[in-house]
Amino acid sequence: MIATQYKGDKTFSVIEKEIEAPAKGEVRIKVAYVGVCGTDVHIYHGMMDKRVNIPETIGHEMSGTIDAIGEGVSGFKVGDKIVVRPLDDRKVKSSDKGFNHICEELKFIGIDSPGAMQQYWNVPAFTLHKLKEETDLKLAALIEPLSVAVHDVRMSELKAGETAVVLGGGPIGLLVALVAKEKGAQVIVSEVNETRISKAKELGLDTVNPIKTDLVDYVKSKTDDKRADVVFEVAGVQPALDIMTEVAGIRGRIVMVAIHGQKKEVDLFKFFWKELKLIGARVYEKEDYEQAIRLITANELPFNEMITDVQPLKNIQTVFENIDKNPEGLKVLMDCQS
Amino acid sequence: MIATQYKGDKTFSVIEKEIEAPAKGEVRIKVAYVGVCGTDVHIYHGMMDKRVNIPETIGHEMSGTIDAIGEGVSGFKVGDKIVVRPLDDRKVKSSDKGFNHICEELKFIGIDSPGAMQQYWNVPAFTLHKLKEETDLKLAALIEPLSVAVHDVRMSELKAGETAVVLGGGPIGLLVALVAKEKGAQVIVSEVNETRISKAKELGLDTVNPIKTDLVDYVKSKTDDKRADVVFEVAGVQPALDIMTEVAGIRGRIVMVAIHGQKKEVDLFKFFWKELKLIGARVYEKEDYEQAIRLITANELPFNEMITDVQPLKNIQTVFENIDKNPEGLKVLMDCQS
Ligand SMILES: NC(=O)c1ccc[n+]([C@@H]2O[C@H](COP(=O)([O-])OP(=O)(O)OC[C@H]3O[C@@H](n4cnc5c(N)ncnc54)[C@H](O)[C@@H]3O)[C@@H](O)[C@H]2O)c1
Ligand SMILES: NC(=O)c1ccc[n+]([C@@H]2O[C@H](COP(=O)([O-])OP(=O)(O)OC[C@H]3O[C@@H](n4cnc5c(N)ncnc54)[C@H](O)[C@@H]3O)[C@@H](O)[C@H]2O)c1
Ligand SMILES: [Zn+2]
Ligand SMILES: [Zn+2]
Repeated sequence: MIATQYKGDKTFSVIEKEIEAPAKGEVRIKVAYVGVCGTDVHIYHGMMDKRVNIPETIGHEMSGTIDAIGEGVSGFKVGDKIVVRPLDDRKVKSSDKGFNHICEELKFIGIDSPGAMQQYWNVPAFTLHKLKEETDLKLAALIEPLSVAVHDVRMSELKAGETAVVLGGGPIGLLVALVAKEKGAQVIVSEVNETRISKAKELGLDTVNPIKTDLVDYVKSKTDDKRADVVFEVAGVQPALDIMTEVAGIRGRIVMVAIHGQKKEVDLFKFFWKELKLIGARVYEKEDYEQAIRLITANELPFNEMITDVQPLKNIQTVFENIDKNPEGLKVLMDCQS
Repeated sequence: MIATQYKGDKTFSVIEKEIEAPAKGEVRIKVAYVGVCGTDVHIYHGMMDKRVNIPETIGHEMSGTIDAIGEGVSGFKVGDKIVVRPLDDRKVKSSDKGFNHICEELKFIGIDSPGAMQQYWNVPAFTLHKLKEETDLKLAALIEPLSVAVHDVRMSELKAGETAVVLGGGPIGLLVALVAKEKGAQVIVSEVNETRISKAKELGLDTVNPIKTDLVDYVKSKTDDKRADVVFEVAGVQPALDIMTEVAGIRGRIVMVAIHGQKKEVDLFKFFWKELKLIGARVYEKEDYEQAIRLITANELPFNEMITDVQPLKNIQTVFENIDKNPEGLKVLMDCQS
């Protein structure tokens, strides 16, 4: 079989290795597609070299079929279409209060342990979600990031008729926007990259460039001055932090999806003044995966347009180099069997 | 009658003036006691000279009795004990979404219009809450700050058995701690001022000096490593902002009570990582006043110990000068009739 490995220093190798039998409690997956995540690009840039066990196969946004079943695993048969929820919560403690998906000792499969960017992948069976026969495995590779979006929208308690502003129209922001719109909310996306703005508009999303248009005025004009009920911070930059407290209306909820590596300046006065809420959101829970699977299976949202490129696994090095050169694409999939 | 006036430049005057008849929709109150609030001290320091209509009578933490009733006011009789909820929300708009207590055009009575530090005070009748005959009017002057605390605890959704950490043991922080404890929560107060620490302990509160004791370790030791379910930021300083995200456990709720005039650094990564919530809280709603009135009427909490001094109205200048010299006292009341 073919596997890829991150070797450090912006380098991947493609190696030939033996297919392994699944251990007890595991299955072997024949990987179909793996999406390249922002986190994978971070790893490529060497930003996570302390955490990743180099050389390592990475990748966690995947779809595939069951190829072999280890001892003690039931409920699956060879050929079943599946996705992996890449959270290893086996070290959960009582102080985690039942929030297994963010438990203190959580291991993220594909970062802390080997990932999906290979032809065959052995994983613990408890990570699996079964898909329907008719599911498109290309779209299914979007289930992991879509689950992030579903989780974020669920945490926001967004209701039909409310207005949501999404700061940042990258892959995650656009999925959040689609899920929020599907809930019956009015959705406004704020994005600075013109190619991504066009893409967002193609997806049917009301999209504003905050450098050209006063976002707060725009949102006020669309809400009878109420401003946003919910704001999703999915840009990860200081200007988004500065505007999130402006664009939110009274008792607005701001969901912090973006990962801010350093302490950042926040207008806490506005939190007090308008009784805003800030809601941290990380990955997903089981029910978010189930909802994302329903959405992908129904295929009523423009998920296909989110996939801007599909490349064979052996091209991994150029795939990452191209993402670096052109941050305007959305989701690139690796085809693990071609 | 005697009235006090803030004249700017850290100066109050005590003047003699005519008692006025209450206008239509208003009542005249014979003011009993007025508490000195941190905001009043801010005004004294000239920090709000742009907002206050100098010379102005300030004060909003009061108790009193009805002295005269204006045209069109029903439901009150002369002699009724009352407190004022000093929020003038008559300019509420639909974009305020029904959150009248924080509406965009809210006027705070005693800051934006004349306050209670005088013998008689005319106010709109809609601001009144009636007290029971037997209510102690000294304690009743605590109803306004106690309502802040009741609101903060309500916004936190604190439940019995949970652990709350209160950062800052000033008047508001201690009231928050008492209300949280009354809810059946385990409460830990963090305070740096030794006199206030002693006071908090006298009130029966588990109190830590975070300069001497590692607060996070202390809270972990008291919670089987779970850390705090709820954190109240009532100190208003950067070290409290730094520790709030450390001391909160998974899915912890942090209530922002303190008023931060400038943007401050916040560890947003921790919000993401532990799925923390930040909840802005400002003043109170009607139901918070009603709950505070119930607590003061029942008088089962050590409210009396919160009152560290009572001074005649005519001493207003020295009262404010002494608060400046000695920030260790808690609540000073002005006796408006002696
Ligand atoms: N919470 C979670 O579990 C989770 C999961 C996945 C990703 N993330 C985080 O979500 C964020 C978004 O992920 P992504 O993959 O979509 O990233 P991305 O970098 O592709 O998208 C961010 C977008 O924000 C845009 N942007 C930059 N400045 C802006 C501004 N001032 N206003 C509006 N938009 C602006 C960029 O042009 C870009 O398109 C990242 O911080 C990522 O780490 C969080
Ligand atoms: N949200 C509202 O509607 C509302 C209403 C009233 C007051 N407030 C605000 O609440 C805050 C507290 O009010 P207060 O009157 O009790 O103020 P205060 O200044 O008397 O109390 C703050 C306390 O924090 C302590 N402190 C300072 N540094 C600390 C640290 N590192 N750790 C722990 N404690 C520390 C101080 O010693 C002081 O006792 C203020 O910011 C005030 O503006 C808000
Ligand atoms: Zn991902
Ligand atoms: Zn006050």
